[in-house]
Amino acid sequence: MTEFMDVHRGMKGITGQQLQEAHKADLAIEGEERVHFKQAWADPDTGTVYCLSEAPSADAVQRIHERTGHPADEIHPVPLTV
Amino acid sequence: MTEFMDVHRGMKGITGQQLQEAHKADLAIEGEERVHFKQAWADPDTGTVYCLSEAPSADAVQRIHERTGHPADEIHPVPLTV
Repeated sequence: MTEFMDVHRGMKGITGQQLQEAHKADLAIEGEERVHFKQAWADPDTGTVYCLSEAPSADAVQRIHERTGHPADEIHPVPLTV
Repeated sequence: MTEFMDVHRGMKGITGQQLQEAHKADLAIEGEERVHFKQAWADPDTGTVYCLSEAPSADAVQRIHERTGHPADEIHPVPLTV
């Protein structure tokens, strides 16, 4: 398992509730791809959302995000952390 | 205090030790701007580094990163988290 940071753009004006709901939708099906979404951070002004996950591959992360209606614009493996 | 996610690009090939050293340099002076760098994640293949901090402003975050020799390419306030 590797950690991934994915980035969504174009989510201007996202609210705390919308972020919660999007995260909940991901959590509901993430197990089917052996993904786990750990945390997410949103900047509503620029519409940027960062999601930190643990997953077998970037494709697995994207399949979950696609099925819940919010495909990521970038997905980076982040094997180094501090 | 607000949380910020900042992004550095062009750090291809960064090692775990380099990430540690960069983070340690930030921690050594962060108090002067009332910034605290909480976590960082790196993708050595694309050279992308994400730093999560708590700070009074994006400018304060950047001043620390500049003084330690690695200015950020983007800094986003992330008031929403899940």
